[in-house]
Amino acid sequence: MGWQPAVPVEDARRVACIGAGVIGGGWAALFLARGLDVTVWDPSDGAEESVRRAVDLAWPSLTELGLAAGAAQDRLAFAPSLAEAVADAHFVQESAPERLDLKRRVLADLDRAAAPGVVIASSTSGYGATEMTVEAQGTPERLVVGHPFNPPYLIPLVEVAGGERTAAAALEWAGGFYRRAGKFVLSLAHEVPGFVGNRLQEALWREALHMLATGEASVMEIDAAIREGPGLRWALMGPCLTFHLAGGDGGMAYMLDHFGPALEAPWTRLAAPPLTDALRERLVTGCDDESAGQPVADLVRRRDAQLVALLKARAGR
Amino acid sequence: MGWQPAVPVEDARRVACIGAGVIGGGWAALFLARGLDVTVWDPSDGAEESVRRAVDLAWPSLTELGLAAGAAQDRLAFAPSLAEAVADAHFVQESAPERLDLKRRVLADLDRAAAPGVVIASSTSGYGATEMTVEAQGTPERLVVGHPFNPPYLIPLVEVAGGERTAAAALEWAGGFYRRAGKFVLSLAHEVPGFVGNRLQEALWREALHMLATGEASVMEIDAAIREGPGLRWALMGPCLTFHLAGGDGGMAYMLDHFGPALEAPWTRLAAPPLTDALRERLVTGCDDESAGQPVADLVRRRDAQLVALLKARAGR
Repeated sequence: MGWQPAVPVEDARRVACIGAGVIGGGWAALFLARGLDVTVWDPSDGAEESVRRAVDLAWPSLTELGLAAGAAQDRLAFAPSLAEAVADAHFVQESAPERLDLKRRVLADLDRAAAPGVVIASSTSGYGATEMTVEAQGTPERLVVGHPFNPPYLIPLVEVAGGERTAAAALEWAGGFYRRAGKFVLSLAHEVPGFVGNRLQEALWREALHMLATGEASVMEIDAAIREGPGLRWALMGPCLTFHLAGGDGGMAYMLDHFGPALEAPWTRLAAPPLTDALRERLVTGCDDESAGQPVADLVRRRDAQLVALLKARAGR
Repeated sequence: MGWQPAVPVEDARRVACIGAGVIGGGWAALFLARGLDVTVWDPSDGAEESVRRAVDLAWPSLTELGLAAGAAQDRLAFAPSLAEAVADAHFVQESAPERLDLKRRVLADLDRAAAPGVVIASSTSGYGATEMTVEAQGTPERLVVGHPFNPPYLIPLVEVAGGERTAAAALEWAGGFYRRAGKFVLSLAHEVPGFVGNRLQEALWREALHMLATGEASVMEIDAAIREGPGLRWALMGPCLTFHLAGGDGGMAYMLDHFGPALEAPWTRLAAPPLTDALRERLVTGCDDESAGQPVADLVRRRDAQLVALLKARAGR
């Protein structure tokens, strides 16, 4: 039989948010806006006040995007202990501070306290489910990673990943639950440190830190370079399809032939992998698949229309 | 006296675009939309047809953003030689293929052909002005980098940088000219391979290539992870200010204390620099300066309003 969920995704009405910093508070706001009951636990002083303030701050945006029927800020409650917070929860989102020892302890506590059919997802930015759940003794099959991006109530992406002991059914349930909450779910087939989004973000961030440390660029220059440059394209189509369009009618294949040599150039501190035929093929085929064979000129038209909309939307800044 | 521009920025009416691929064609579209006369030279077969098609494709977007008085596609001309293209130009934009030997040769040819008071800017993605202009014998003081991001007619950023022989007045002229053409100009104080935008983009891109090569992620997963995740925030405020907001009321200082240890984690193949007190201070002060001392809660409100607008603008995709 294996692990079975306590309730089907569509019957999940009560969520526990464990840890109420920027991420935990953001999750609480999202789940409330989706019409769910949310119970928060956080041992720090002033956590309740800070979550209420975070939800207040998020509410106008969530309202503008559309609240679910019955959504209300007063469906937010606070529990005096971890165990009481998860006692009748249908789903648990853990957002404790990003320390492996702490994550291990909290996840083991949650695993002990929550009913076995309840999925417990960690907001960790990069630890793997396997390493985070070594202390869990109860039902580790339902322990998953559910990694959001700040603010969780507006940025669509959640990366869902399991560990060696995670049940496929728990991953599926988590994905279904997040999708129902309006998220874009990336279900990861591999357990990679930092997952996908954070690995990419972290490479950029570390290059930025090096540039700051050496004085090659300032905070303001780094932010402007991304905000007025590649950031705009990435928000529309990500890095691969962006370069597919930079290749003109020849797409990614042309782009790789044109810019392949630049991979040898010292344009970042990170060395590139060799551009083998297999890697080239994977990129070219991947872009063709992603664009469903649409000609580059059509993609350019769509990108440009969206860039115009984005530039107009930003213009009030 | 030093180098002097042939005309003030506001009198520059004729532009030569050398090289008519995706970038050169995109520049031509932008300059035409700004009401300038554009002469293109490119030795490849079919270059004229392909530029006309690129301008056609870009025109609806440029029209929606607002054409300058007198802007017209029929102010586009083609020259039979490099020398004729630049003969009466007030500004030259070089967008030859990205090979150092070729850039050197073309820039030396342009330097010979264009009047000494004319600024010649290279669209290079990362070569430095010093290394690109070693063969220029005429007036190397006016040779600069003017690095755009595709598509140059919509993405605001242009990175302007000089080399050892570049005159400050030429850099200033180039910056003024691009700003007049509606671009966001980042004037770089240091000659760094890849400049700022491409160093950051390239770090992310190389991490993506590694993940593809090892099978850690697919093209579609990489694109979704950025497009539905950090890409959205970067389009609004860049990576540093994004993390400043992730720190809650404590801002960047809190964020570094919270996520500093993650810099040791293997969340990318690029090792981070040590998070020294000096680097920490540079980040914290940089974010305070960039946000002009606005409280994080105010920045969150602004970010969220813009994210909502961005998500709505994208929703047609």
